[in-house]
Amino acid sequence: MSQQQRDTIDQVLRHSGLDLGGEVAEQRRRYREMMSAIPLPGDVRTEDAALGGVPVVVVTVDDVPATSTILYFHGGAYAIGAAALSVGLASGVARAAGARTVSVEYSLAPEAPHPAATDDAVAAYRGLLEDGVPAGAVVLAGESAGGGLALAAAVAIRAAGLPAPAAVYLVSPWVDLTLSGESIVTKAPVDPSVDPAGLGRRALDYGGGHDLGDGRLSPLFADLTGLPPLLLQVGGNEVLLDDSTRLAARAAAAGVQVTLQVTPGVPHVFVGFAGMLDEADRALAEAGRFLATHLAG
Amino acid sequence: MSQQQRDTIDQVLRHSGLDLGGEVAEQRRRYREMMSAIPLPGDVRTEDAALGGVPVVVVTVDDVPATSTILYFHGGAYAIGAAALSVGLASGVARAAGARTVSVEYSLAPEAPHPAATDDAVAAYRGLLEDGVPAGAVVLAGESAGGGLALAAAVAIRAAGLPAPAAVYLVSPWVDLTLSGESIVTKAPVDPSVDPAGLGRRALDYGGGHDLGDGRLSPLFADLTGLPPLLLQVGGNEVLLDDSTRLAARAAAAGVQVTLQVTPGVPHVFVGFAGMLDEADRALAEAGRFLATHLAG
Repeated sequence: MSQQQRDTIDQVLRHSGLDLGGEVAEQRRRYREMMSAIPLPGDVRTEDAALGGVPVVVVTVDDVPATSTILYFHGGAYAIGAAALSVGLASGVARAAGARTVSVEYSLAPEAPHPAATDDAVAAYRGLLEDGVPAGAVVLAGESAGGGLALAAAVAIRAAGLPAPAAVYLVSPWVDLTLSGESIVTKAPVDPSVDPAGLGRRALDYGGGHDLGDGRLSPLFADLTGLPPLLLQVGGNEVLLDDSTRLAARAAAAGVQVTLQVTPGVPHVFVGFAGMLDEADRALAEAGRFLATHLAG
Repeated sequence: MSQQQRDTIDQVLRHSGLDLGGEVAEQRRRYREMMSAIPLPGDVRTEDAALGGVPVVVVTVDDVPATSTILYFHGGAYAIGAAALSVGLASGVARAAGARTVSVEYSLAPEAPHPAATDDAVAAYRGLLEDGVPAGAVVLAGESAGGGLALAAAVAIRAAGLPAPAAVYLVSPWVDLTLSGESIVTKAPVDPSVDPAGLGRRALDYGGGHDLGDGRLSPLFADLTGLPPLLLQVGGNEVLLDDSTRLAARAAAAGVQVTLQVTPGVPHVFVGFAGMLDEADRALAEAGRFLATHLAG
């Protein structure tokens, strides 16, 4: 089954009509159309709320306990996407980990360049703690740019002297805005959805004139010492593959507990295709086990 | 408990008396003394045998099925160690995976330099297949130099056109005999057991005049395309840390399914301390799950 599943998803992505580097309002509209078309499981509930002054969508799954919290950051190259459009994957993570997910509506570029998104992420985390949620019952998670943001937030949380979350879970994270990984070139022919030129355009929007190699924008280059256990899941057909392999190496060198899982033949944020792709189901189950272990510990 | 466990093991290793680069016969004697002192669990059985003309030790655990086979390669920098001295870890892997382990008595340097060990490894694998064991019921596994040998064997098995094993499981593998990883320098102060100069000496013995950067001696540099799923477990306190992080990156780039697990604060081949170190127990349980999944698939 899986080869057919992979081929189908590859074709769907190649014809999605999304142009990552295109005019922002138009791409936001297309992304919303694309993601809204995917039905949510019937047992998923969402509720708009706010945390530390930042809008969030609280995602719960019937019969799944909400004692732990996944603080989730959606993808979209820091310019596209929305908390409500990531509920599919966010609810899958909640279900797998036995937790609720709080998806953060962080500020987007180009209207709000760096450090607006990181500030929102840290404010939401502070908000959770102020609501009485213990840091050890929180995981930071994110996909693509949201993965980079989750990591940047983990570094900022440590720098702010706040208690550390239990773990960090990143799906196909974008952690190098300078696009210096070899896979940016070598995997371009097999990546059905992420266009490096488009990423470069969005990086400039998000950077707003800052040095893109600064660890606060590109947390691959941050000092990762002292971060909580880190799970990275990435596909083999991704220009961002090397963001994950290099992050695993740098985190390991800094003494961080790291698990890297590379699944060949699948695209960017393949975990989002749970229910349609066997590899995604397996990755989500692995993530659930990892997160449940660290949330319990 | 674990910090105390880690400190104890670190001290034991720092005072083991083993001198990796020292005179071979003397180091073999010391290693044998050290490893023989560790009692085996009472339910572990060993039997001397041969596979493809190569001596092996067959390791079974009472009440654990022997339908699958872990073909295991011990550590010792290609010059020290023996199949019987790795039965502790080999039986732990058997127990965790639900399989028997066949530990290979491959030829050692300097008496038998490259390619003797790889030839023995492939001969043992061929022997398994000729005995009627399906390739899909075999995993190649190894620790340290034995991890490098398992990987070199996987590449040689593919090159020979033999059917691929189900998976490859490497514990702290030594895959770069040129010692070009940064961790060779940066982790030396925290590595309690592996002396880079000693490794360099043993690499020259094993190379026997061959180019140490050749992918057949240093499989980090081999073409890894088409290899079966790969699990790497490595400690954070290892000069060989970068052998694993670089191998994960190269295998991922080549389209291989890779899982890399880095456990900080623990030494070379920490998985061998199962029963004494919580991190080792956890790693072995994870390996068991990984191997059982691929042996079943």
